[in-house]
Amino acid sequence: MENRVIKIGIAGLGTVGSGVLNLLKKNNEEISKRSGFEIKIECISASDKTKKRDCDISGLRFYSDPLEMIDKESIDILVELIGGETTAKDLVIKALKNNIHVVSANKALVALHGNEISKISNHNNSDIYYEASVAGAVPIIRIIRESLNANDINWIAGIINGTTNYILTEMLKSKKDFNMVLKEAQDLGYAEADPSFDVGGIDAAHKLTILSSLCFGIPLDFNSIHVEGIEDIELDDLNYARELGYSIKHLAIGRKNKDGIELRVHSCLIPEKRLLANVDGVKNAVVVSSDAAGPTLYYGAGAGSLATASSVASDIIDIGRKIISKSSNSIPFLSYHNDELKNKRILDINEIVSRYYLRIRVTNKPGVLADITKIFGKKSISIESILQKEDLINDTNVPIVLVTHEVLEKNIIDALKDIENLEVVKGKIVKIRIEELDS
Amino acid sequence: MENRVIKIGIAGLGTVGSGVLNLLKKNNEEISKRSGFEIKIECISASDKTKKRDCDISGLRFYSDPLEMIDKESIDILVELIGGETTAKDLVIKALKNNIHVVSANKALVALHGNEISKISNHNNSDIYYEASVAGAVPIIRIIRESLNANDINWIAGIINGTTNYILTEMLKSKKDFNMVLKEAQDLGYAEADPSFDVGGIDAAHKLTILSSLCFGIPLDFNSIHVEGIEDIELDDLNYARELGYSIKHLAIGRKNKDGIELRVHSCLIPEKRLLANVDGVKNAVVVSSDAAGPTLYYGAGAGSLATASSVASDIIDIGRKIISKSSNSIPFLSYHNDELKNKRILDINEIVSRYYLRIRVTNKPGVLADITKIFGKKSISIESILQKEDLINDTNVPIVLVTHEVLEKNIIDALKDIENLEVVKGKIVKIRIEELDS
Repeated sequence: MENRVIKIGIAGLGTVGSGVLNLLKKNNEEISKRSGFEIKIECISASDKTKKRDCDISGLRFYSDPLEMIDKESIDILVELIGGETTAKDLVIKALKNNIHVVSANKALVALHGNEISKISNHNNSDIYYEASVAGAVPIIRIIRESLNANDINWIAGIINGTTNYILTEMLKSKKDFNMVLKEAQDLGYAEADPSFDVGGIDAAHKLTILSSLCFGIPLDFNSIHVEGIEDIELDDLNYARELGYSIKHLAIGRKNKDGIELRVHSCLIPEKRLLANVDGVKNAVVVSSDAAGPTLYYGAGAGSLATASSVASDIIDIGRKIISKSSNSIPFLSYHNDELKNKRILDINEIVSRYYLRIRVTNKPGVLADITKIFGKKSISIESILQKEDLINDTNVPIVLVTHEVLEKNIIDALKDIENLEVVKGKIVKIRIEELDS
Repeated sequence: MENRVIKIGIAGLGTVGSGVLNLLKKNNEEISKRSGFEIKIECISASDKTKKRDCDISGLRFYSDPLEMIDKESIDILVELIGGETTAKDLVIKALKNNIHVVSANKALVALHGNEISKISNHNNSDIYYEASVAGAVPIIRIIRESLNANDINWIAGIINGTTNYILTEMLKSKKDFNMVLKEAQDLGYAEADPSFDVGGIDAAHKLTILSSLCFGIPLDFNSIHVEGIEDIELDDLNYARELGYSIKHLAIGRKNKDGIELRVHSCLIPEKRLLANVDGVKNAVVVSSDAAGPTLYYGAGAGSLATASSVASDIIDIGRKIISKSSNSIPFLSYHNDELKNKRILDINEIVSRYYLRIRVTNKPGVLADITKIFGKKSISIESILQKEDLINDTNVPIVLVTHEVLEKNIIDALKDIENLEVVKGKIVKIRIEELDS
């Protein structure tokens, strides 16, 4: 075997950066046996050299400015683990322009600036790989780009934010409400101090931006995604869903239909027999349904120091192989070659057709249900089933749970507006889409 | 984009061969947009040209002898879909020696002759890819070779034979016995006329031979695998297992432990909350548990014309890219570079430690249980739980179901021999290993 060395520099030494350092050290020999080369960390960059870390940085040249590191060092691959869109973007672009290949775990960077970065990467024949940006240890990027690439992909649905999935799982398990579980998740380190990015669905939407481009051959466009979080899900909804044979999961969904492409991040009821319904806690899973392979599912840790490092390291090995065999830029950044990416019509959320779970709080008076169903009738919405729950304590605030047949989202929104205006209806109606996820 | 053409020849036009022809035709344009080249089928080979097939072979040069095809045609990639070990082996070796790359779906060929084929491939700088040989549409080979390659893999467990999984699923669902469901599976085309290869575990063992080499860096060695089928599983066992909170699945398991590597194919009880326990029917799924990524799971269609073709086509695209970028032989055939493959100690089945489910048929007399538990005591086997079932019809043939704590397989086998010799015990004791599959 040739005694080749691939020299890397790592920018950012947080959870993932430390994990990469530790993993490359621990499995150095094992990796060489497979790759045929040695990965040598030459230099690192972080804002504070003296900060206590879970990794050993002795013997590595240290830079507090990653841009300076790129200028001064002669490395083959830059590993960008800073996150965010400012320094990280400048750094990645500078590296690619200097013919340094890049591995990044930065979903915001790829989702929001990937179109630009892809062109720079092509122009300079420098690769940028980003497996760790979606679903942590689960190699979903490689699977779509390199394994399902002879398929016409019909839809993709994923649990790709561990925080939201943890919260929904724990609410049902421990019978606690959203805010209590969120607090616990923050204490456990599963949720950030400012959780809005995760529980509001933005993080999942960044990831769906990437996945939908890879699946459907469209340029990255974060703004085309309809985003809802999990803040409105109550423990009651989780319980009623279960009674109906469903689990509530926060999903990222991309789907081709005859009129265009649906791209949406929101909570859904999914049949409890589906594997996705059984993906609990901080785990991630993605289903890809395509014409030849049919539905396939990929499951694993969506975050964590070593789990994310596993994906970062596989990208380093892949680029290392391409450096040695002089075959860079052989896999297109967004699965499709740049000039084959086409804008396609993205449906507005009003245009989608779905079944709906609805929870309506009413004053328990005769004729309430008749008033409500009359409005549904007017909008051609037919009801599949009704769970009327008695509230033993309070007759003025009783939940009615309804499941509709398939209907246009716009019609549901219109109907709910009218129903919310009824005097007997209290507060906002909870509306959760139902996804059968069959193929 | 460059206008490159990759020329292929397909040998074997059965279910998979037809699927590859149909898929490459249907998604030809989509594939080009991703790969940057056109895949052109130049020629095909099958024993009978006039046979009615589900694909259009007009315009393709036809050979009844695939070896002749290799000699006469100028192709970049041979797609070997003949199966078996005789012609297929000669053909693949001839192609590699003629510097023609190979894509094969032939698990027996890889499992039994892969060590030899790998050397020929290396020596001639010709690639052989075989994604479709294990788990159909699920890209498990690529995932291990290219995505989990920075990990130390601890264990792998998979449902990798659709026929056995279909039979076990159907037995429980329709409350029928093994032979009835096998007959139905044969009528549906899910089982072969001679089912021994599938239900006896040989097919799964071929696939485990391949997976264990990829995971643990050992040369392919089919004979090192302990193989049991599903013929002895009765409907009663499926029901009792469920009562105990388990599903029975036929698994292929590879596991490193401190003394060596366990390689075994057999039925197991697995906790019903595990995703693997919920993989039903003809589907396949593989869990890989490794030090960095943790447990990851990959699920999908294990067989079928287009599903298998999806994997074959991804290999063609991959090799096509390597031909164009002149980077062949950059991924080692068995994940580890050939000179890094090392024979490691494979444990005998007697040396493994497991929990066991046991079903013992006895004559219902006072003291029966005492006689049995005394023998377990002598062999230091402790019992975790007992289900004693009353048989209302027949007091001379009553089942006792036992679950043991962890114990050496040898001790269980010794104990069961002694217990089967008791006069009150009727027939052979059913013994099924219990796998927790936690990480």
